[in-house]
Amino acid sequence: MKIAILGFGTVGRGVDEIVAHVEGLEVTRILDLPDRCCEPRMTSDYAQIVNDPAIEVVLECMGGLEPAHTFIMQALEAGKSVVTSNKAVVAAFFDEFVRAAEAHDAALLIEATCGGGIPWIASIEKARRIDAVTHFSGILNGTTNYIIDAMSKSGADFAPTLAKAQELGYAEADPSADIDGIDVKNKTIISASVAFGVACTKELPVTGIRTITKSDMELFAQQGRVVKLLGHGLVQDDAYAVAVEPVALPATSLEANVPANFNLVTLEGATVGELKFYGQGAGSLPTGNAMVQDVLDLAAGRRPCYDFSRALAYRPELLAGDYVFRTTATPQGGRAFGDGAWLVEGITAEQARVLFDAACASDPTTFMARLA
Amino acid sequence: MKIAILGFGTVGRGVDEIVAHVEGLEVTRILDLPDRCCEPRMTSDYAQIVNDPAIEVVLECMGGLEPAHTFIMQALEAGKSVVTSNKAVVAAFFDEFVRAAEAHDAALLIEATCGGGIPWIASIEKARRIDAVTHFSGILNGTTNYIIDAMSKSGADFAPTLAKAQELGYAEADPSADIDGIDVKNKTIISASVAFGVACTKELPVTGIRTITKSDMELFAQQGRVVKLLGHGLVQDDAYAVAVEPVALPATSLEANVPANFNLVTLEGATVGELKFYGQGAGSLPTGNAMVQDVLDLAAGRRPCYDFSRALAYRPELLAGDYVFRTTATPQGGRAFGDGAWLVEGITAEQARVLFDAACASDPTTFMARLA
Repeated sequence: MKIAILGFGTVGRGVDEIVAHVEGLEVTRILDLPDRCCEPRMTSDYAQIVNDPAIEVVLECMGGLEPAHTFIMQALEAGKSVVTSNKAVVAAFFDEFVRAAEAHDAALLIEATCGGGIPWIASIEKARRIDAVTHFSGILNGTTNYIIDAMSKSGADFAPTLAKAQELGYAEADPSADIDGIDVKNKTIISASVAFGVACTKELPVTGIRTITKSDMELFAQQGRVVKLLGHGLVQDDAYAVAVEPVALPATSLEANVPANFNLVTLEGATVGELKFYGQGAGSLPTGNAMVQDVLDLAAGRRPCYDFSRALAYRPELLAGDYVFRTTATPQGGRAFGDGAWLVEGITAEQARVLFDAACASDPTTFMARLA
Repeated sequence: MKIAILGFGTVGRGVDEIVAHVEGLEVTRILDLPDRCCEPRMTSDYAQIVNDPAIEVVLECMGGLEPAHTFIMQALEAGKSVVTSNKAVVAAFFDEFVRAAEAHDAALLIEATCGGGIPWIASIEKARRIDAVTHFSGILNGTTNYIIDAMSKSGADFAPTLAKAQELGYAEADPSADIDGIDVKNKTIISASVAFGVACTKELPVTGIRTITKSDMELFAQQGRVVKLLGHGLVQDDAYAVAVEPVALPATSLEANVPANFNLVTLEGATVGELKFYGQGAGSLPTGNAMVQDVLDLAAGRRPCYDFSRALAYRPELLAGDYVFRTTATPQGGRAFGDGAWLVEGITAEQARVLFDAACASDPTTFMARLA
């Protein structure tokens, strides 16, 4: 099976390295910027790939919305299957891609968009052959897990720990997508779409960990809790809800003990019960592995059929709980919860986000976490 | 696809309940003892199943070696595929079953033998499409995990906790297979066979947790460790090794925090890194789910091809470490390790087992665990 790689960065190189050792697969073209084309397979002209009838699969690992969106659509419209690791573009255009794939008898495979090397998307699809997936939840961002874990182990505060993560290549120069929860938001949208069979809303409550401090972690530690950034979603009756937020989990939970930049994601089905999947959530070889697994599935005849036609309403009030705010701006309905912190009980994830925004207006260092 | 179930106990009933809700599958015959046949699908005459050309798949959930072994062979020889949850019979006759399946163009599917509802066997097979699996390890027995977890939470000792597990249906009236590690041994043999591509030895070091006490757990807790019963195996160069033993793990490891009767298993591959899978390791619906997943794979055209032809020597000395013995019989080379316990460093799993047997000869209450 002849493959083209779009984007020869960390993930693209990982794919190329892995494919070299897999029988039956061959990377024949690689798309990159003109000044980076340094070997015969490389081109900066996408027409040479999309018009090449020998290429059956296009592996998009460029990231970002454009030109990824255009290139994926062109490949699908040319009847080529697309394997992508690009969560931003899939979260934004999942529905459009799926319709184009169906219309042109091509397949769209997205394992590498969520959880790196973890077989998460395939496991949701497999579980759904028997069970309705009623709930999912997980640590879906390695950068923020690394930061929280390193802060807790070193006792250092957020800024120097982020700087170290950047030095190690775990965090981008502009870390916003990670620390503000945007990356987890994209993965949550994709996971919910696959798990619930619905074109997931793009307007969900999203809160990151940009303002977490060493003292916040100590406050929760005194109560036997560890904060993690989680994406989660649930279905109840004919409705679903999704959110991304810091959650203070029992220190004895598996999630609380996930080290370094690893991910851990959970799904729940009626007969199988709770299943958890743990592994490297990013990186050249783990993400490359997920993309090559998708190609091997394709070669074996698997064609994921995403169907977003389920009549589920988005009802954000399904997600509710008790929230802690560490802020100098007392939140409405808050009662004292340790030094400088307030507990607001029984509110929805959306209400919590409104309180958080209100508090941030007067105290931009405000931190919020749900108790679980 | 028409299915026959052999054995209508916990697992068989779970399968029947699940299949009732899955399109395209139908349980047409159920084998059980004459006095248990109470509905038209049931028979106590296996000939009615194995000679029925309409039945494509036989789901064996009787347990035990005979007649399971004979029935599985007869089904395969009749060209029927077999799905089984019976670890004892697969561990004993894996090679023979695989040869019979190949010879008669049938398939053998064994997901439900290890880890209940966890997609463990399928995940090893999937990982091996790209990576050599170099190591696996895990909590593969829910009964012993329940006992250890309950002892640690309640502060009760082994005997009353085992009694409670029996009351709850987590442990058999004769608990030996669980607490002496025989069940984990069978799952370790099966996992190693699939992961390493070798007909795994049946002569491996196996130690259970029958002699663990509350004080043993406290001794390890003082050092920040939690004991779990693990099955594990590794490959190095042209050799492999496997063992089953209690392991004292860091309290912050995921394994140490696995609650109740859950399982957690890990595999390691060169490009994907470490993957962990967590879920219900037993029970009617989770195990039934795994069997029905196998049937759905079969219906989708998947035919697992187990190949035990890899030239790997069994070299038990590959597994070595530091072992703690709590015994009144000082083990050779032991130095004091807390109250009544001894540390012997740098010995193999086999040597540890020899020291354990020697100590047990004079102190049958001896407990042993490897430090990890």
